[in-house]
Amino acid sequence: MKAEIIAVGTELLLGETVNTNAQYIARELANLGIDTYYQSVVGDNAERLHEAYKIAFGRADLVITTGGLGPTKDDMTKEVAAQFLNKKMVPHEESLKSIKEFFAKRGLPVNDGNRKQGYFPEGAIVLPNSVGTAPACIIEDKNIKLILLPGPPRENKPLFKTYIIPYLQKYRDKVFVSKTLNVTGIGEGQMEEMIMDIIENQTNPTVAPYSRARAITIRIAAGASTREEAERLIAPVESQIRDRLGIYVYGEGDISLEAVVAELLIEKGLTIATAESCTGGLLSARLINYPGISSVFMEGVISYSNQSKTRLLGVKPETLEKHGAVSEETAKEMAEGIRKVAGTDIGVSITGVAGPDGGTERHPVGLAYIGICINGVTKIKKINSSGSRNRIRNRLANTALDFIRREIL
Amino acid sequence: MKAEIIAVGTELLLGETVNTNAQYIARELANLGIDTYYQSVVGDNAERLHEAYKIAFGRADLVITTGGLGPTKDDMTKEVAAQFLNKKMVPHEESLKSIKEFFAKRGLPVNDGNRKQGYFPEGAIVLPNSVGTAPACIIEDKNIKLILLPGPPRENKPLFKTYIIPYLQKYRDKVFVSKTLNVTGIGEGQMEEMIMDIIENQTNPTVAPYSRARAITIRIAAGASTREEAERLIAPVESQIRDRLGIYVYGEGDISLEAVVAELLIEKGLTIATAESCTGGLLSARLINYPGISSVFMEGVISYSNQSKTRLLGVKPETLEKHGAVSEETAKEMAEGIRKVAGTDIGVSITGVAGPDGGTERHPVGLAYIGICINGVTKIKKINSSGSRNRIRNRLANTALDFIRREIL
Repeated sequence: MKAEIIAVGTELLLGETVNTNAQYIARELANLGIDTYYQSVVGDNAERLHEAYKIAFGRADLVITTGGLGPTKDDMTKEVAAQFLNKKMVPHEESLKSIKEFFAKRGLPVNDGNRKQGYFPEGAIVLPNSVGTAPACIIEDKNIKLILLPGPPRENKPLFKTYIIPYLQKYRDKVFVSKTLNVTGIGEGQMEEMIMDIIENQTNPTVAPYSRARAITIRIAAGASTREEAERLIAPVESQIRDRLGIYVYGEGDISLEAVVAELLIEKGLTIATAESCTGGLLSARLINYPGISSVFMEGVISYSNQSKTRLLGVKPETLEKHGAVSEETAKEMAEGIRKVAGTDIGVSITGVAGPDGGTERHPVGLAYIGICINGVTKIKKINSSGSRNRIRNRLANTALDFIRREIL
Repeated sequence: MKAEIIAVGTELLLGETVNTNAQYIARELANLGIDTYYQSVVGDNAERLHEAYKIAFGRADLVITTGGLGPTKDDMTKEVAAQFLNKKMVPHEESLKSIKEFFAKRGLPVNDGNRKQGYFPEGAIVLPNSVGTAPACIIEDKNIKLILLPGPPRENKPLFKTYIIPYLQKYRDKVFVSKTLNVTGIGEGQMEEMIMDIIENQTNPTVAPYSRARAITIRIAAGASTREEAERLIAPVESQIRDRLGIYVYGEGDISLEAVVAELLIEKGLTIATAESCTGGLLSARLINYPGISSVFMEGVISYSNQSKTRLLGVKPETLEKHGAVSEETAKEMAEGIRKVAGTDIGVSITGVAGPDGGTERHPVGLAYIGICINGVTKIKKINSSGSRNRIRNRLANTALDFIRREIL
């Protein structure tokens, strides 16, 4: 089955709304093992919507639309579908009744627009919408399946879950299983080179790398007649990839790097405190994003001024004067200092030049040092990065998290 | 000019990424007065990308793509465009040089994939990418304009702003000017009610509110034969809106709330220090996102444990015991404490229950207190919010910034 998603709505074409519906449906279809080759967006315009149906049915056998089922004149997804498929619009008594009830409950009159929401192309399977007034429907016509869903995510998501997934599952002869590995501390290109032969030689499972804001992910997806068989196909490929990438793989699925670090700290009973300069709390904020971190995260310090580095962390004024605030020596004293004052097992420090100004030849923008002191042993990592202030700072927080992870492991 | 946006990337078809690029570009095109009738999404597949180009050029005269300019084999937007338009791929020396420099700076070798990023369809206008390794380009062919942009938003947004907007402006017979007001501290519905008559009665300029992650924005856009005339149309509507919304308007255009606060602090010569609990550094990280904050931001403390609240900020153990860590009293002592230890004009504190666990009847999830002490006078704000841990924490940091802004003004 080849699917296509059409989102209908002028607000999407004007950039007033982000098309999160397409993303949600696309992911659900992928989970069902149904290929989507195209998505499109079209405005509230009969002629262009007709054209979108024509193109979609020329290349797909399952078309799913979102939007245009409302009560206004602009809402015409159902009507254009009926016209496209040469079907009459007929009343659906049950829907009309529940629309009437919906308005009666709120003490409002039912107008023609609302009544329109109870009409469907002849032969459609009508799916009641418990959240709003726009029922969804499925139209089966020759080899074509057309599914019309309302636009608001809080309406179409429950409809998709309740009716569409079970409906589509009937047409699947295979079960599709996928597993995602999260990678950090390595560039996408470099990682791809390390597993290029695996990516290229695999067809079932398929192996696909993606670059995200904070990590690279590798999706391993297999189709088989049972879940167990699909998992059996994935297992050897997964272990091959894990062997190659080793410590670069930090977790599976939706888990974040901070969650992995937090769980490691909790598991090993190691307490931690942070001392940040240019990142200004990004590292601590990521750690504290993990609920339950309170048993291991003790405190953090944003020692942005030299003064506070000395007063709060005991960094020696001579060190700051001789080596500068952005130096291996300062990072070391910061990490050791925060560990000492907080009385934790681990002290982590970040100091760097986030820019865009303030760079010098000796300390250019993007230069930073991350220090980690575990039970008295201190290691320092030197970083050179580039980009905006925001990007440099976020990458530093990410690198620091990864540094902590590797040192605990 | 009729535009069409094609987003290229299998990750979009698999629902792994939301197509925020289409939304951004669509909005910018609308600002320029350029109509977009369709958007589409296609995977990393030469044949289907070719088909997408064919359909788009059959109905639009401006096609803008995002994605597929990276170094891997899967990245083929440029190559398929060249093939579609019957153009040779030729090296672009300047781009090749800057790619080489990019990798040299990081001590990494340049591989064939990276080199590919320096090749373009013959005759293309190459637009240097200062953020990543994928330059963008514009291809003009007969009546067709094709603009290829990289996929990562942090790369394509600055490219669009710097090069594409001025390029497209040349083709407009009207000048379109828009102004954005940023609003915070009020709900979208409430704000809309306050200016509903202005929104409804305006056609040129148009007035449109949008809800963003950290603020609500109001876009006032006018078309006229000159920039001055458009600005003259905008001015009275803007001042009417500002009159109605008063202090809720915190700034114009791309300025962030933290930048407004930072500039106010610098202008008034007020130094600041922060004490955060559940936000864990989100407030300090936002302030430090502003370059030049070092003259006023002295230090921050993440006093996550009760112990650290007492040791670092001098919060009395009795206060914690009697009123709890999440209380007006604790927020007050935290704000006053950080101001005292840091020796600043302003001390700000945040303490709350971010959830998802740890809520009690007395201190439910979402309850928080923000304290601000300016020159000895302390005010406390009580907040009740809901949603995920992440959402609660981010809203608290935002509310704290707005609280600081109002108190300084």
